[in-house]
Amino acid sequence: MADIVGLKNRGKTKADADERRSAAEEYTGVKLETISNYGFDPELASKNIENMIGTVQIPLGYAGPVRIEGEYAKGEFLIPLATTEGALVASISRGMSVINASGGVRSAVFADAMTRAPVFRVEGIEHSKKVMDWIEANMDLVDAEVSKTTSHGRLVDMEFFPDGRSLYMRLSFDTADAMGMNMATIASEAVCRLVEKETGAVMISVSGNMCSDKKPAAINMISGRGKTVVAEATIPSDIVKEKLHTTTSAIVETNYRKNLVGSSIAGTLGANAHAANMVAALYIATGQDPAQVVGGSMTITTCEDVDGDLYICVRMPTVEVGTVGGGTALPCQKEALQMIGCSGAGKAKKLSEIVASTVLAGELSTLAAQAAGQLGQAHKTLGR
Amino acid sequence: MADIVGLKNRGKTKADADERRSAAEEYTGVKLETISNYGFDPELASKNIENMIGTVQIPLGYAGPVRIEGEYAKGEFLIPLATTEGALVASISRGMSVINASGGVRSAVFADAMTRAPVFRVEGIEHSKKVMDWIEANMDLVDAEVSKTTSHGRLVDMEFFPDGRSLYMRLSFDTADAMGMNMATIASEAVCRLVEKETGAVMISVSGNMCSDKKPAAINMISGRGKTVVAEATIPSDIVKEKLHTTTSAIVETNYRKNLVGSSIAGTLGANAHAANMVAALYIATGQDPAQVVGGSMTITTCEDVDGDLYICVRMPTVEVGTVGGGTALPCQKEALQMIGCSGAGKAKKLSEIVASTVLAGELSTLAAQAAGQLGQAHKTLGR
Amino acid sequence: MADIVGLKNRGKTKADADERRSAAEEYTGVKLETISNYGFDPELASKNIENMIGTVQIPLGYAGPVRIEGEYAKGEFLIPLATTEGALVASISRGMSVINASGGVRSAVFADAMTRAPVFRVEGIEHSKKVMDWIEANMDLVDAEVSKTTSHGRLVDMEFFPDGRSLYMRLSFDTADAMGMNMATIASEAVCRLVEKETGAVMISVSGNMCSDKKPAAINMISGRGKTVVAEATIPSDIVKEKLHTTTSAIVETNYRKNLVGSSIAGTLGANAHAANMVAALYIATGQDPAQVVGGSMTITTCEDVDGDLYICVRMPTVEVGTVGGGTALPCQKEALQMIGCSGAGKAKKLSEIVASTVLAGELSTLAAQAAGQLGQAHKTLGR
Amino acid sequence: MADIVGLKNRGKTKADADERRSAAEEYTGVKLETISNYGFDPELASKNIENMIGTVQIPLGYAGPVRIEGEYAKGEFLIPLATTEGALVASISRGMSVINASGGVRSAVFADAMTRAPVFRVEGIEHSKKVMDWIEANMDLVDAEVSKTTSHGRLVDMEFFPDGRSLYMRLSFDTADAMGMNMATIASEAVCRLVEKETGAVMISVSGNMCSDKKPAAINMISGRGKTVVAEATIPSDIVKEKLHTTTSAIVETNYRKNLVGSSIAGTLGANAHAANMVAALYIATGQDPAQVVGGSMTITTCEDVDGDLYICVRMPTVEVGTVGGGTALPCQKEALQMIGCSGAGKAKKLSEIVASTVLAGELSTLAAQAAGQLGQAHKTLGR
Repeated sequence: MADIVGLKNRGKTKADADERRSAAEEYTGVKLETISNYGFDPELASKNIENMIGTVQIPLGYAGPVRIEGEYAKGEFLIPLATTEGALVASISRGMSVINASGGVRSAVFADAMTRAPVFRVEGIEHSKKVMDWIEANMDLVDAEVSKTTSHGRLVDMEFFPDGRSLYMRLSFDTADAMGMNMATIASEAVCRLVEKETGAVMISVSGNMCSDKKPAAINMISGRGKTVVAEATIPSDIVKEKLHTTTSAIVETNYRKNLVGSSIAGTLGANAHAANMVAALYIATGQDPAQVVGGSMTITTCEDVDGDLYICVRMPTVEVGTVGGGTALPCQKEALQMIGCSGAGKAKKLSEIVASTVLAGELSTLAAQAAGQLGQAHKTLGR
Repeated sequence: MADIVGLKNRGKTKADADERRSAAEEYTGVKLETISNYGFDPELASKNIENMIGTVQIPLGYAGPVRIEGEYAKGEFLIPLATTEGALVASISRGMSVINASGGVRSAVFADAMTRAPVFRVEGIEHSKKVMDWIEANMDLVDAEVSKTTSHGRLVDMEFFPDGRSLYMRLSFDTADAMGMNMATIASEAVCRLVEKETGAVMISVSGNMCSDKKPAAINMISGRGKTVVAEATIPSDIVKEKLHTTTSAIVETNYRKNLVGSSIAGTLGANAHAANMVAALYIATGQDPAQVVGGSMTITTCEDVDGDLYICVRMPTVEVGTVGGGTALPCQKEALQMIGCSGAGKAKKLSEIVASTVLAGELSTLAAQAAGQLGQAHKTLGR
Repeated sequence: MADIVGLKNRGKTKADADERRSAAEEYTGVKLETISNYGFDPELASKNIENMIGTVQIPLGYAGPVRIEGEYAKGEFLIPLATTEGALVASISRGMSVINASGGVRSAVFADAMTRAPVFRVEGIEHSKKVMDWIEANMDLVDAEVSKTTSHGRLVDMEFFPDGRSLYMRLSFDTADAMGMNMATIASEAVCRLVEKETGAVMISVSGNMCSDKKPAAINMISGRGKTVVAEATIPSDIVKEKLHTTTSAIVETNYRKNLVGSSIAGTLGANAHAANMVAALYIATGQDPAQVVGGSMTITTCEDVDGDLYICVRMPTVEVGTVGGGTALPCQKEALQMIGCSGAGKAKKLSEIVASTVLAGELSTLAAQAAGQLGQAHKTLGR
Repeated sequence: MADIVGLKNRGKTKADADERRSAAEEYTGVKLETISNYGFDPELASKNIENMIGTVQIPLGYAGPVRIEGEYAKGEFLIPLATTEGALVASISRGMSVINASGGVRSAVFADAMTRAPVFRVEGIEHSKKVMDWIEANMDLVDAEVSKTTSHGRLVDMEFFPDGRSLYMRLSFDTADAMGMNMATIASEAVCRLVEKETGAVMISVSGNMCSDKKPAAINMISGRGKTVVAEATIPSDIVKEKLHTTTSAIVETNYRKNLVGSSIAGTLGANAHAANMVAALYIATGQDPAQVVGGSMTITTCEDVDGDLYICVRMPTVEVGTVGGGTALPCQKEALQMIGCSGAGKAKKLSEIVASTVLAGELSTLAAQAAGQLGQAHKTLGR
């Protein structure tokens, strides 16, 4: 099947893409007019995709500007968001407007490391101990292997989880401003080859799922992966009333019954209203890996009544972002990063604070809307 | 802050979008050339986004074709995938090629319902019982309220979770070919208003997080949300050897140490290699909600040695997709849906089987690559 | 090794137990004076243990009396508790005293079924569907098999979880006043033998861990196992102040930061202070299975400020208790059950409400103590 | 209510216990003959219980002897087990017999620390950072506070989890041979008082549930609590066949479908057949805290076919045991500890290896029985 000319063309030029697109049109009988109508040279995406035939265009809007006083993000930011869910951008923007009127977002990055956790097959407990001992006694050799694979990355932590004939080793890397998963993978594999040679352990997978990448894993919620970011704001009671048409206590109650108790009975990792929405819209806009929305979905949102004012906070233990590498150099995505001053080296932590600030605004707006009993209504007016 | 002309323009026309884009360029000092170079009339996206200034273009390629013998998807499909992660499309395509050589994917849909779970504040246990009793005794009135809000949707199940002063009610709807979350939200709110009036319970949120939307929740892994789909393939031992350069037992061992044991120690919901990757690429290509990648990430992948051949299977309890509504009518997305014969009514279950089949191919390829110790190498050659 | 005379004596009489005990003393070189000084005929325990050499005596005290207005437990109860943790009984008793002064506990049983979930090996998806179809079409035969194994038990629900070559079937039984696990196991095995014969599916284990017995499983927290019980009380603000030396808001805050948010970040199933303590003490006293403390540990405790008064509630989805069978007929255990009017048939739901009421009292007391900053102090005075 | 003379007697002597028992008999109308017939002076239990009226006698048998070659447990041990579940002791004994014939258990302790995690209320992110900074800069003062409360305990690790207005601090202590929870609680409270005074943070609870004690928490499964112990054995194929009447591959398959895949779909922490049973029986026999069976229930059991032989292993990350303190000095419990050479100082790690070895034997026997399709049958013959 599928031997139409062009379908197996592996080239990276515009002509190659066009030939493939024609072949795909012939194969499927569908005219790909909009998909083929894109605004950049496919060779720019040569490291981002194979078999390219065009692009999918996701509507891009903005929310904000939002004022952030973070450790790394400081000032006012107009946030680019790519989504097809009506009402989302408007809702986030509303949250930002309320937050600005209240003095802005405060945020901080509490941890930063990309993890990879190979799994070895060993002979059993005794062998596990020997392998662990050897590694701990030869960290200079381990570090040297890492250095051979990367000039930006640095191994910063290592944790062992022995389980009989499986030995898991969770490696944490400083990956500078790259999200860093490939860097971590390549460095980890180099470490594993050394360990194999010296100890007789056999690397079964460079990723033994205790990393854990793109899976909802308690280990990431607890120990963090990528950036651990917290963002908060305090909304005076009169602003809650005038701009959100509800009360501090109603929002606190909504967060309590919905995000805390409801999530608990549902067996959820994290406790939030819709953090994944904001994460997805911002990740897609800025060339992050959209599968890592999973990490962002483990956000914990808390709301408290502080002398009548509303204190709201998001804790995000797994913000896996970069400002170099991945999709960040593609034309649209780069422009989106530039909009928030996050293109290129030295910006990844800043970006993570912008992510958390955007999530905070979206959480505030949705909780307030639900507190006011308006969710269904909002979708009826703006949405699908 | 931010009182630049145009930034607050709320219009939906191309001129409005252009005025906003100019304002955003002025505000941020960044020229948005590629973002503004898009191929469709923004009014087509008027229900999908607010504050639109352009689009973000995600590279689109294809994997396959893949042969599927499902309940709903039958035939050969060329799968549109939008991604910026190098090697992903090639890897999925490799998996599909191996599966085709082995007779194709078999799949089935075991459940199909969209859920919404409002939470009420009640006075306590006694009141909870009264509310539950009233609802169960008045299902005709409940159904009538649902009917007023939707002609496509139908309430098919209802489950209660009383917890003191909170009463959670998980409603399951048949939403035809829409993903259906808005339909479910609006119908649920109508039901809640009735319940409020008749019982004195107070709806605190139309979503009490036992739905659970866009959060990694055990309740969805167990009870399902959207479609529950299973897809499988059997790869003869010689094909494993020739095309995947490894062995059945090596793949089975990789799946065991990585996906089963590793995920278990990591406290993961689901057990897979990278299901979220395939889900994200296909969801973005076809106008699905990318935040619902979270649901897809709870896939369980199993591999077994059956007389030397490799049996591989994915169980996906939370495939939240639609072929009408949401982003499915946007030009690129619609073309992508047409490529797989999934545009419009009557196609949602078919799409869910294509999702599972694509995940299966991606899981197979990655597990095989890891089994062969090639992951780091593959990324070095093709990736970022 | 170990061929000392008596060690392999399998008899059930006092003489047999004594011979074994002598042999054990000889083997270990330890004089078992207190272990051998027990107050009943070992033949009474012949179905409860093998190789009996004596008993271990656990200190038994009481808490209460506590006033309960439940669906099944009505009146005042003096609660027998077996524990070795100093301060526990006093703490529970304090909670009960406060609850009594506030009008007592209110409770209800919202569900009641014992589950067993066999797993079959099937050939794949197609076979899974055939097996499920056959079972659903032949429920009369299935019920007949169940009836052959038990006169008390009745199959009340059945749920399927197909996953490729594994098919899980979660069976729910009404087991009357027995905890019912053995009844459910035997009946399930009979069903499986029928299914094997008729469909070619192979029962791999009568328990496929989706039951799930004695493991902390989200499925039990969500769908329940044994009894799902809720108990609540409302403590007037002045009683909180006078008897608990703290305030409603301090207790609510403690519950919020500790049980809700802390448990969430820790990735806990359930959200409580120390429910397992009360469950263990009451289960051991009354001959329940102490390994099922695991089910009780998934309690969710909520505290709310209702017009200044403290509303406190426990939701216990997995109270696996019986008043016949298991250890309930042993002499001490039977006396303990009699103390609360729960010995024999017709009492299991009553017992489950007493369990929840006792947990409620213990949670109240500990939360109040922590709110008042007294936990360390309490243990210094009363504890180890 | 409840003003019967004696019921409120708080004394600790035998006469006091008798007076209370009489009062309880009068109050409940039940004669407590067996409960009151116990073999030791209640003053020995004065720190273990309040309101003592007698004891509950749990049948005690033994399994084994079992041969263990651990780091700390070396030799043959006759294992005391207290249970009321028929067939359990016989099953464990069968497992031990098979293991002995195969060369015994191998085990090791990979970590050992008792944790307590206070939660502070802080003003927000900025305050959180200041508190963390102050603590990290003043570890000498922190250690000094710990030293004032304990001569045996030592703070060995500290981890922070900031979340807006809540700051969690997970403290890990070396508690020598005590299980150590009270030691950790008292020391933690002392640290908190210092932190409160120096930083303005307010201790809301000395236990913020990230400890996490007696709750099924992913944090304990991942980071460990008490001892992290692994135990393994290799059963030659002919012994599997002759003594267990099944095959290596059947046991491996049972473990795979039941413990790995079944547990995964059920959303379980840990993956085992019935670890809690063995833990409960041994904990009750030896004066451990039976509520900590919850920690033991998070065991992961793995089975592998190694050249036809069966490799079986249990990983137990949360074995919370002590050989001094708690119930370990009570007469029966002390005798049980003496039977395995674990009474008194210097024995806690040895005990933890015995726990894991016993769990290993019980898992082996049950998996083998299920593999052979015998579970229902075994209970019919021996059980209730």
